[in-house]
Amino acid sequence: MLSFGVKLLALAALGGNAAYAQTFQRLGTCPTLGCVFPPDQADFMPGQVFDVRVEIHAPLNGSEAFNNGAPDEKFSLTIQRVGDRAGPKLARDFWKCPEPGLEKWTFNYFEDLFAQDAKTPTVVNVASKAYRQVALYTPGEYIATVHYYNTQKTVAHWTVRKPTTPRRKAKNVLFFIGDGMTISMQTAARLIAHKSVNGKYQSLLQLDQMDNLGHQMTHSIDSFITDSANSATALNTGHKSSVNALNVYADSSPDPQDDPKVETLAEMFRRVKNGLIGIVTTAFVADATPAAIVAHTRDRDQAGPIIDTFLRGEQNYSWPGVRGVDVLFGGGAENFLPGAASFEGKDYYAEFAKAGYSVVHDNAGLQKIDKRKKALGIFSVSNMAKWVDRKVKTQNLKGQQNSPTGDKTDALDQPGLKEMTLKAIDILHARSKADKNQGWYLMSEAASIGEYKMMHVLDYHRALGELLELDDAVRASIAHLKKLGIYDDTLIVVTADHGHGFDVFGGVDTQYLHTAASDRQKRGAVGNYINSGLSGYTVAPGTAPTNNTVVIGAQGANFPVQWDPRYSLAAGVVAFPDHRENYTTAPNGPRLPAVKGQNGEGYVPNPADAQDGFGLTGTLPTNAAQGVHSLTDVAVYANGPGSEAFRGVYNNVDIFFKMADALGLATYKNTTSSGHWH
Amino acid sequence: MLSFGVKLLALAALGGNAAYAQTFQRLGTCPTLGCVFPPDQADFMPGQVFDVRVEIHAPLNGSEAFNNGAPDEKFSLTIQRVGDRAGPKLARDFWKCPEPGLEKWTFNYFEDLFAQDAKTPTVVNVASKAYRQVALYTPGEYIATVHYYNTQKTVAHWTVRKPTTPRRKAKNVLFFIGDGMTISMQTAARLIAHKSVNGKYQSLLQLDQMDNLGHQMTHSIDSFITDSANSATALNTGHKSSVNALNVYADSSPDPQDDPKVETLAEMFRRVKNGLIGIVTTAFVADATPAAIVAHTRDRDQAGPIIDTFLRGEQNYSWPGVRGVDVLFGGGAENFLPGAASFEGKDYYAEFAKAGYSVVHDNAGLQKIDKRKKALGIFSVSNMAKWVDRKVKTQNLKGQQNSPTGDKTDALDQPGLKEMTLKAIDILHARSKADKNQGWYLMSEAASIGEYKMMHVLDYHRALGELLELDDAVRASIAHLKKLGIYDDTLIVVTADHGHGFDVFGGVDTQYLHTAASDRQKRGAVGNYINSGLSGYTVAPGTAPTNNTVVIGAQGANFPVQWDPRYSLAAGVVAFPDHRENYTTAPNGPRLPAVKGQNGEGYVPNPADAQDGFGLTGTLPTNAAQGVHSLTDVAVYANGPGSEAFRGVYNNVDIFFKMADALGLATYKNTTSSGHWH
Repeated sequence: MLSFGVKLLALAALGGNAAYAQTFQRLGTCPTLGCVFPPDQADFMPGQVFDVRVEIHAPLNGSEAFNNGAPDEKFSLTIQRVGDRAGPKLARDFWKCPEPGLEKWTFNYFEDLFAQDAKTPTVVNVASKAYRQVALYTPGEYIATVHYYNTQKTVAHWTVRKPTTPRRKAKNVLFFIGDGMTISMQTAARLIAHKSVNGKYQSLLQLDQMDNLGHQMTHSIDSFITDSANSATALNTGHKSSVNALNVYADSSPDPQDDPKVETLAEMFRRVKNGLIGIVTTAFVADATPAAIVAHTRDRDQAGPIIDTFLRGEQNYSWPGVRGVDVLFGGGAENFLPGAASFEGKDYYAEFAKAGYSVVHDNAGLQKIDKRKKALGIFSVSNMAKWVDRKVKTQNLKGQQNSPTGDKTDALDQPGLKEMTLKAIDILHARSKADKNQGWYLMSEAASIGEYKMMHVLDYHRALGELLELDDAVRASIAHLKKLGIYDDTLIVVTADHGHGFDVFGGVDTQYLHTAASDRQKRGAVGNYINSGLSGYTVAPGTAPTNNTVVIGAQGANFPVQWDPRYSLAAGVVAFPDHRENYTTAPNGPRLPAVKGQNGEGYVPNPADAQDGFGLTGTLPTNAAQGVHSLTDVAVYANGPGSEAFRGVYNNVDIFFKMADALGLATYKNTTSSGHWH
Repeated sequence: MLSFGVKLLALAALGGNAAYAQTFQRLGTCPTLGCVFPPDQADFMPGQVFDVRVEIHAPLNGSEAFNNGAPDEKFSLTIQRVGDRAGPKLARDFWKCPEPGLEKWTFNYFEDLFAQDAKTPTVVNVASKAYRQVALYTPGEYIATVHYYNTQKTVAHWTVRKPTTPRRKAKNVLFFIGDGMTISMQTAARLIAHKSVNGKYQSLLQLDQMDNLGHQMTHSIDSFITDSANSATALNTGHKSSVNALNVYADSSPDPQDDPKVETLAEMFRRVKNGLIGIVTTAFVADATPAAIVAHTRDRDQAGPIIDTFLRGEQNYSWPGVRGVDVLFGGGAENFLPGAASFEGKDYYAEFAKAGYSVVHDNAGLQKIDKRKKALGIFSVSNMAKWVDRKVKTQNLKGQQNSPTGDKTDALDQPGLKEMTLKAIDILHARSKADKNQGWYLMSEAASIGEYKMMHVLDYHRALGELLELDDAVRASIAHLKKLGIYDDTLIVVTADHGHGFDVFGGVDTQYLHTAASDRQKRGAVGNYINSGLSGYTVAPGTAPTNNTVVIGAQGANFPVQWDPRYSLAAGVVAFPDHRENYTTAPNGPRLPAVKGQNGEGYVPNPADAQDGFGLTGTLPTNAAQGVHSLTDVAVYANGPGSEAFRGVYNNVDIFFKMADALGLATYKNTTSSGHWH
């Protein structure tokens, strides 16, 4: 252990006044030296299973140094239901479970950027216990109190929410996530895909026409900008968490698999109603958003174990996980093919096939799939191709060597989000009908709007293509549910997991930009206000944007007529590395805006990107290769039974409760024993 | 007239295929050579008064050159109600009005940026007629057809909307506009003013708690980025228009006062119900948003005539304007003090006083005002002081020499938006009660969020201060209406007129940024995702953002506890000139990010601004001194009678119809004669 000069603080200073904790925190949600997870402000569905962890911290050095770095090992945790006359009980008595064993570890962190530059970490010793698989059944308020260092207390107020109605409203839930999709992007997507005549749109996004509209706040539990794992945790469990964490509260222990877990919507639905579970994504299927349906880990990058969880459920601590999702469609062959990136090196195509799954690798196979069987469809290595490349610039599919079979050919017959979603609905519907008509939960993700990675790489055109594909998938799904006669039974929710600070601020004469001599002259190609003009994307090539004729392009209604108009969008994000902009659809596939400089100066503009554009210095640290997520609230759209609950402004965790309410997932007693859930 | 080589196009090409028309257009809404205003797709309230203009164009040169530049003078306009067996009638017969006289003029425009650089304008000769003050009373579809050049036709489909219910729902309408306010800004304002503990806000914006939520599309009729005049026209008349136009369709004539007008909500309310009208703004009162309540001009900069319109109503063409608004509060003393900036050089304080108005110049005077009289309150020269300077950095009020009395002292006792709005409500309520209880329409604008000018000048902190003041004014107004017993009679609508592409992408250690040596090192002060941390604005100075204590600052609840935390917001806009960023609240008053370079190179970073920050090259043309508006849809919030209509996604013009519906403004016959309105 490193040795530092130790400063002993008076107990009065224990209140967590670490003056520097912000860029780096000792541990999120734990401003004092005693921590409990779930922390203060946590909400639960009645009967939702969760773990509890207590940590006592003793920083050895730094502004909070305490007790010579010796954490209190004699701490205790009490639980009380507010209004319960019996008063607080020790956790083991409250839950009638054995007292967990004491755990100890040490971690380091930097108090601020100066400490990081000086390479002077703060060392924290920890004593901890974890109570596994507990639940609270009676709606109301609870107080969890950690007692430590003799006189210190950390109090967490927990709420078990009372469902709005006792009955189940929806048989099925179809949950669309547009990764990184903001209202500004939707506005831009409408502009390029739908013709406006004298200020009146002649057609609209499907999202514009949904029955109910809301906004959700996406921030983390311990930082105001979320990542996709973190926000997916909120949407799937009703619990806020930390960046990179999937359905756990992030503790400070070194093991990413031992963090305190929270039961997900899919897990509750399977446990309580034997519901069927489907997962569709255009990303690799082990990515954060699909993983969050069933996985529990501090580290979203555990792709191999996540794939195993889809098949076998969560294995550690006898967690009541979903054993075998019914549908799993997306990319990420590298985590299935036997090798370094698959769990224990095994062939997971074979593992799924052994468990009775249909396994398909292209759209032709998808269309012929047996609707009665569980289905695995892996259609490419890594993330799937973008809509623009699959439908418009199809030459970019070639030379990728990304066949999901691992034979280094190109994955040329990849299905789109619409094809995957409609087929997933077919399978879930058929399996539900053939079983007990128990209903299904399908999460369908347009992964490449923000994440994986079109807004990240400033490829605004491809991002909008992905958004329009999502919109088209929602439109087609509504029609398909109606055709199957289950539209009135199905709650449809469409939202995003976070934003990217994107907007359109004018039009660009790309011809002028191309021919202008200098960077400063090129900027003169941008037209603002009246000079932004009208959308060049909704008219036929060679016609003026002012032409009022409604034309349908080769990709059908609801998509642009052309992707390379002379007058394009001047658009941007607020967070970017050094790069160049020419406001055209990158011809050779997704953009790579920045590359590592030759002289250790961090990222610099990619000389191969937007060569005829002008240069921009970045707003991000120079070690950032691409854009980042943003703060903005994102929109929520909902149709069907229970959808009125999605109006207004609320926290992302509330979406879990609204969906769980619609499915009637609350349980008011231990389904297996009288207290401890398991 | 300039002489150009004239190219005669075949008639077949008349369909408006001007290949270049985009950055510049011959005339918005007129892709062909025959134009009619209102154009195709126009919607009307039954009985809404409007002018009709027809223009026939003959370009003398350029890609559309036609008929040697001689416009058809024998054109005609026919009108038909769809389903009316009588068929189309000549306009003069349809409206039983005299045939208007023929007008002729010439205008120039550039076909594109290359033509502008080459200084080769296109010359267009015009023949025109205007039918003044007409109306359509019967809901349904109408077809207006311009016949010209013998065989050519331009067809406009007009719709007179049928109100959703025949009865009046609301006695009063309180309409708040947050200029340039986006959902991203609201998210950021919530973050700095409301304490979050473990991801759960302990209090919320008033906007978060409104009963109904919608989105509106803000685009212009002829360009996808609007200005505030244009969008205010849509909100006040239900008609889209062009940049800089106020309650008129922009024609091509040189006179900015002769463009075809459309009756506003305030004008209809006064004409039909004798409703009372109030206007509150933090801008100068002749600015676009307040002017749009009653003014009609192609050129929003006609400040003098606009002030006269507030007092005497629209004077030209015997328009049925509002003669004397009941309340007018804001800045802009320069347009009242006798001199070059006032109408006909007159003293408009005296003019208003002569007409029976109370005239006040500070908050003390405002508080003592006689509620029974009409009221003029002008509290500063130009735009009023920003909330941050009025409440936090009060030293910045000094040395402004902006007293509304014109005596070159400082306007130190300026009321805020809340004070002005509550007093306006008091006056309107008292006057309505004392008269026929006819109700009132009050527009209250937080003008300095986007426009005038805090987002424009990249002063994110001051912009968020203005937004929070708006939110506070809405909160206080609801309480005040309840106290007066008229909350249930009052439709409250809060929205924006357009966006600015703003978002927050992380936290900043300003201390690190300040001390870092180079621009690239300074960027390392930005923390993203987990390193964004928590809001430094909601904790007491000297405490860590992780501190969970809820503290109320000197400006009260719902405002930041501090404006200069060590850890501030990394925020930005997508459209900006060259400038520097240091992410702190500019200490000496609103920012001036860019100034004209010494060598004719356009705008460059202001050396006096954000001196310890890092430099950013602009995304805007180098002749842009500040940021610009953006495309994004903006949110709409509504409470009270008729407010359910504001749910969902719609066009900005729909807001007019929803408010007019709530007030029951439709009239089904000519209120003064049988046909021609006047």
